[in-house]
Amino acid sequence: MDLNNLVKSIKNFEGVTRKKSISKLLSILGNSDKISGHTYLSYGDDAAAIKLGNGKLLLLAADGIWDKLMKADPYWAGYCSVLVNVNDIAAMGGEPLAMVNVLSIKDENTCFKVMEGVREGAKKFGVPMVGGHLHPATPYNVLDVSIVGIVSEDSVITSHNAKIGDKIIIAIDLDGNIHPNFPLAWDTTTHKNSKLVRAQIKAMKKIASKKLVNAGKDISNPGTIGTLGMMLEASNTGAIVELDKIPRNESVEWERWLKLYPGSGFVFSCPEECVEECIEILSKVNLTANVVGEIIPDRKLYLKYKNTKKIVFDFRKEYIVGLRS
Amino acid sequence: MDLNNLVKSIKNFEGVTRKKSISKLLSILGNSDKISGHTYLSYGDDAAAIKLGNGKLLLLAADGIWDKLMKADPYWAGYCSVLVNVNDIAAMGGEPLAMVNVLSIKDENTCFKVMEGVREGAKKFGVPMVGGHLHPATPYNVLDVSIVGIVSEDSVITSHNAKIGDKIIIAIDLDGNIHPNFPLAWDTTTHKNSKLVRAQIKAMKKIASKKLVNAGKDISNPGTIGTLGMMLEASNTGAIVELDKIPRNESVEWERWLKLYPGSGFVFSCPEECVEECIEILSKVNLTANVVGEIIPDRKLYLKYKNTKKIVFDFRKEYIVGLRS
Repeated sequence: MDLNNLVKSIKNFEGVTRKKSISKLLSILGNSDKISGHTYLSYGDDAAAIKLGNGKLLLLAADGIWDKLMKADPYWAGYCSVLVNVNDIAAMGGEPLAMVNVLSIKDENTCFKVMEGVREGAKKFGVPMVGGHLHPATPYNVLDVSIVGIVSEDSVITSHNAKIGDKIIIAIDLDGNIHPNFPLAWDTTTHKNSKLVRAQIKAMKKIASKKLVNAGKDISNPGTIGTLGMMLEASNTGAIVELDKIPRNESVEWERWLKLYPGSGFVFSCPEECVEECIEILSKVNLTANVVGEIIPDRKLYLKYKNTKKIVFDFRKEYIVGLRS
Repeated sequence: MDLNNLVKSIKNFEGVTRKKSISKLLSILGNSDKISGHTYLSYGDDAAAIKLGNGKLLLLAADGIWDKLMKADPYWAGYCSVLVNVNDIAAMGGEPLAMVNVLSIKDENTCFKVMEGVREGAKKFGVPMVGGHLHPATPYNVLDVSIVGIVSEDSVITSHNAKIGDKIIIAIDLDGNIHPNFPLAWDTTTHKNSKLVRAQIKAMKKIASKKLVNAGKDISNPGTIGTLGMMLEASNTGAIVELDKIPRNESVEWERWLKLYPGSGFVFSCPEECVEECIEILSKVNLTANVVGEIIPDRKLYLKYKNTKKIVFDFRKEYIVGLRS
């Protein structure tokens, strides 16, 4: 395992580099997220949060399905549209309430398979698909899904609050398989019963309500290190991470493992005194959780392996999302 | 004006016929809208409604921008993505809270124009765009927007509660222009100040909280008669409508007028004793509102002009959306 090559491969991974366009778009949108006084969190978190005024926050997220995934396996794309949205709410410590979708149909067969996947995802995660919009006869097949959830204002988990000295916990369900039609997906849910899958989502709510972490994110398209990088960037901090402490299913070699989108996987910034309880809650729902490193003031993400240490991201000079640029 | 031709033209209008695919999709989704006990309203209304448990309903809607509109004028498409979503919440008597978007980018210039439109729409309607998801380098330019709003459970306006004997009110802002790049859009908002545009949205909340109507919808892609048809279909009723009572800007001939998507336009099913107050509220915000007909038990939508009466939709034999089929 060559750490240099691994770092290069992560930096150039499409799941990471695709995030670069966000800052340009946000500069066009200006302060349109702050138009009303209700906005509590907007860009840079897994879900936006809107004040409901009773100590509760409404969580709101949207995810589109990558066209490559849609082509590779429409059923799985539909299923994933639920999974990724539910995980966005879970990552904030919230309870998912309902979803809506916009479906553009080029060919019906593809889109019906997509919707079968949506139906099965909704069943598995226990979150209803309550409405949406349909475009028949478009020049493309596109599914976008949006979700709402709810969380208490005093316990919401955000991406931007990692504190120097916090321990970094990475938690991943290792009981999975690389999806046969989409090699970036680590499927941990289709072979599990609903009870366990839903318990994984609820575990996040428990961690939130017990205030065990200062920050957290679900591991998504940018993979494990890319997602951690986004949390560090949002928190204006750095980290040192020991590669071989990251939970891994050993059937998958490191370079691929770190790029996978796991069915259930999270990164946390956790005060030392809360680490034990946090890991215990995660372990109970089949999430293998380890302390992999620590938050540091130096705004770089270092990856250590044996006696070597390399900088993956230097946030003084580069960005993943670029919200602060 | 030939009533026969007008009726044919409305029935064959793409804005109406495009709704036919919905029922097939819903049959695939099965009861996935009922998975949790929180769902109060799902398909068939302008927005879904989720019980928050404190007498409040969370409203949730999603709209995609028709690819034809996206090609015709990306800025206007972005602006409309806000307008149509805000109107979906207004139609339920709700207060819009926030929006998220999913943007797929083929070419950046187009998409930046789209987002400029989104920004201006958010400003005009006073609803923040708080987050979303971005797909760079897709084979298509697609924008989907989703919105949340809030309304009291005891005052929500739905599509399915029109009562026999109710008067049908159609309310349209006549101060507008056909959009130069998209002849199906009746733009009533870009030339108006925010105050009036937002007051039109708030008027709907007032009508809801005073419980002045039994059902209502915003006039959208299916046009005035198509939208009324959807309300009748959802309510399992029919109606007789007198064409020349429908508010119209006389610079536009009937066939085109009835297919337009107005910036602010609504159909209502209103008990006779509430008609006056309802029209007064609407008039104050520049919505020209007339009683155009009445709800009848016979499940047909009749259009009358002078001495002729024609059936536009016979819901015993045909459907627009087909939720009940």
